[in-house]
Amino acid sequence: MTIYRFFIDQSMVRDDLILLSGDPGKHARVVRLRPGEIFQAVTPGLLYSAKVESTSPQGLVGRVVSAVPIEPPDFEVHLFAGMIKASKMDLVVEKTTELGVASVTPVICSRSVPNPDESGWERKVSRWRRIALSAAEQSRRTSLPEIRYPLSFDELTKGESAPIPEGKVILAWEGLSGTPSDLGKIVAGERRVSVLVGPEGGFSDFEVEAALSRGFIPVSLGPHLLPAETACIMAVGLVVFLLHSSAPGS
Amino acid sequence: MTIYRFFIDQSMVRDDLILLSGDPGKHARVVRLRPGEIFQAVTPGLLYSAKVESTSPQGLVGRVVSAVPIEPPDFEVHLFAGMIKASKMDLVVEKTTELGVASVTPVICSRSVPNPDESGWERKVSRWRRIALSAAEQSRRTSLPEIRYPLSFDELTKGESAPIPEGKVILAWEGLSGTPSDLGKIVAGERRVSVLVGPEGGFSDFEVEAALSRGFIPVSLGPHLLPAETACIMAVGLVVFLLHSSAPGS
Repeated sequence: MTIYRFFIDQSMVRDDLILLSGDPGKHARVVRLRPGEIFQAVTPGLLYSAKVESTSPQGLVGRVVSAVPIEPPDFEVHLFAGMIKASKMDLVVEKTTELGVASVTPVICSRSVPNPDESGWERKVSRWRRIALSAAEQSRRTSLPEIRYPLSFDELTKGESAPIPEGKVILAWEGLSGTPSDLGKIVAGERRVSVLVGPEGGFSDFEVEAALSRGFIPVSLGPHLLPAETACIMAVGLVVFLLHSSAPGS
Repeated sequence: MTIYRFFIDQSMVRDDLILLSGDPGKHARVVRLRPGEIFQAVTPGLLYSAKVESTSPQGLVGRVVSAVPIEPPDFEVHLFAGMIKASKMDLVVEKTTELGVASVTPVICSRSVPNPDESGWERKVSRWRRIALSAAEQSRRTSLPEIRYPLSFDELTKGESAPIPEGKVILAWEGLSGTPSDLGKIVAGERRVSVLVGPEGGFSDFEVEAALSRGFIPVSLGPHLLPAETACIMAVGLVVFLLHSSAPGS
């Protein structure tokens, strides 16, 4: 049986009661949680198990059975994704959330699809946050990825967005596609890695030069040229896998 | 400018002319290839470049400019995917084709979604073959992945389908999820690797036992529990990446 997990605000916990309302309350109604059933609730820092006491049209009230501190992650992988068609970005947000990404930031590159106006971004970012929330609940994460407003390629490479990008910065560069990759050695032992992936059509020569002169490390993701959204998913999945496999004690 | 690539039958090549008709002919009309433009055509073994001579409602005639033998791949990765919802299988076929998969075989497991009747399979497999063809053309592969009719888990593990699964067989087992993975060491230097991934909900205990007793090697795909379709994509992408990185000369 599936035990449902909800991301909630700490304000929803009062002593040993959890009051699910708003979006998590709606979600609990959709999945038809009934009195006596167990669910999980995640706040920044605590993972609760609770038993449903009563339901209402607004949500439900649960009694805390246990509360376990959430360990900080061993490592963080941040994705900077050259902006592509919004529907493909939906897939990138969903899949990289499942894979454990710490943050996703769309990046406006010279070959990116045209930007919507500012209200367009607000709608898009809200949508990606809902997708990330749902993917995080379903894949039983203990934290939500941060979905950020877009940055321009210049902001990112000129240091105007510091401390973003975080940690060691990897440039997934299709110019290296087909050459064996030393990505494993490059990320071994790191605690924070950012990966920058180009839009459909790749980075311009000028962008590659700017990224390299900023110290970003070019890597190949494998033998094949990949569509942008597949490259984003693989970049995050590969770095998570390689960091996990090289973690102390493994 | 994009140079379009078409997978064709050798029978479409006559001396130094290529006659695109049928599906590739339709595709050439859709992308509006014009006389004088260059396109590529792939047969099993040869990669042609050709220049459009004339177009017709059925397709076009091109004159061969060059024909280059296609090298056999350095390695093959075969996917055996516990059957999941057909729409999710669509994504698996598209993404693993982009990543270079050699074949995709749906596997009927005890927790798979119910099977369609036989005519249902015919429609589904045809659909997946069209998706694979389109993904292979767009990602500029030099070979098509084989999309096979489903096998039952028993056929696969009892050896009734020999020589399938090919080469060393990896079992992506969520029971190991979270433990560091030695997948890199396990596949290093192999030329043919098959990966077996469970359906939504995973393999049953009985199935895991049967797979292990058949010598399939259990591995973890990383620290997180992944939805079945994400696990399929990552399993293929990881093994391709690791084989490529461990190839002789790298």
